[in-house]
Amino acid sequence: MNKGLFITLEGGEGSGKSVQCSKLYERLVQRYGDQLVIKTREPGGSTGAELIRKMLLTGEVDRWFPMSEMLLFYAARYDHWRRTILPTILRGGIVVCDRFFDSSVVYQGGGRGIPRKFFHAIHAMFAEIDSEHPFLPDRTYILDIDPRRGVTRSNKRISQFAEKDEKEDRFERIDIAFHEKVREEYFAVLEENPLRCVKIDAGQSIEQIHEDIWQDVETLLSGVTSPGSSHA
Amino acid sequence: MNKGLFITLEGGEGSGKSVQCSKLYERLVQRYGDQLVIKTREPGGSTGAELIRKMLLTGEVDRWFPMSEMLLFYAARYDHWRRTILPTILRGGIVVCDRFFDSSVVYQGGGRGIPRKFFHAIHAMFAEIDSEHPFLPDRTYILDIDPRRGVTRSNKRISQFAEKDEKEDRFERIDIAFHEKVREEYFAVLEENPLRCVKIDAGQSIEQIHEDIWQDVETLLSGVTSPGSSHA
Repeated sequence: MNKGLFITLEGGEGSGKSVQCSKLYERLVQRYGDQLVIKTREPGGSTGAELIRKMLLTGEVDRWFPMSEMLLFYAARYDHWRRTILPTILRGGIVVCDRFFDSSVVYQGGGRGIPRKFFHAIHAMFAEIDSEHPFLPDRTYILDIDPRRGVTRSNKRISQFAEKDEKEDRFERIDIAFHEKVREEYFAVLEENPLRCVKIDAGQSIEQIHEDIWQDVETLLSGVTSPGSSHA
Repeated sequence: MNKGLFITLEGGEGSGKSVQCSKLYERLVQRYGDQLVIKTREPGGSTGAELIRKMLLTGEVDRWFPMSEMLLFYAARYDHWRRTILPTILRGGIVVCDRFFDSSVVYQGGGRGIPRKFFHAIHAMFAEIDSEHPFLPDRTYILDIDPRRGVTRSNKRISQFAEKDEKEDRFERIDIAFHEKVREEYFAVLEENPLRCVKIDAGQSIEQIHEDIWQDVETLLSGVTSPGSSHA
């Protein structure tokens, strides 16, 4: 078991994941101070990983084959893990991370056709190369929302300018199918990891979602040594 | 079996690998023309892979953990394979490549402590994702030279300016130990891949090394359909 606490938030388009990361981070900072609590996100979160992030998020859509893309994500992730996340939890701190490896499994796996066992193989490598420090969040909150509501939420601004015609409706339906698939993939992650992953109803108000997460975080915090006590 | 021919050259410091790549390439071009024969090298060899090459070869020595470095090499390699090497051999061409995955096994594996089975796991992923096209050179020439001769060769220019003192001797000895290790790792690659890999005595003259390689290439060429005949 790592010291400290490593929490990740996951979810599809419009699930309100980033807002919830900020709210959780701020509440933890209020209690423990900003020396012990950090907020980070993927891809990125360390100098090397940010360089890779730039290669992943810019350029043409077909710039990378799914296989290369997946390896780039994990090259960045390992850097993020070793330089940002692990040092923080080793000194008893708390890490709140917006997306982690479950996003790869869901998007590169489900969305881009990389078999699920490839991810397991790479996780096993990371675990073996440093067997003292499990490469695993302590808790993952999966923010679940009906794709129709989620996509509407995140497209709200764009759709103000869009005129309804048949073509746009077709595109919207394709979109929904993709997000349905992402949701199914997240359900599979939940099923595979019943102890680590907790489903959160992201159809609720921002405040209620936060309270649901916070209630579980409190339980986790009562279970670990008081943060900071394991300071190196 | 892929169409065409995919040849890689491997070897330690001062083995004369790059010179031999050029000589082999030129001789093949003389026979088949420069439309059917290409020379490439790793890391790099495609637009995406060259971007990754830049990240790998610049910056601080400890910029990447071995694990991230290995994944970056393979992200680049997959791009190189899919965009440069595979299209060439699929149209019946010949690829001469300066270093390929054996260099990763030898340097990131033997040198940087990544277990050999990790490489096998990634090769298996590449093979599975596109099972029609074996991710494998048809032939690999391993240029073998006594590290003392190899290092002397490649340091010749530097050593003209170096004064002999005790410290420099210590450094030289460490160097030799590293190159001995690389040589041992290449021997292990040879032993693991007796059909694909051929050891070449790189202690000979440049002309003789080239002739040894060429003699084997001729045998390979007589075994494949005349290059270009499988043009798509």
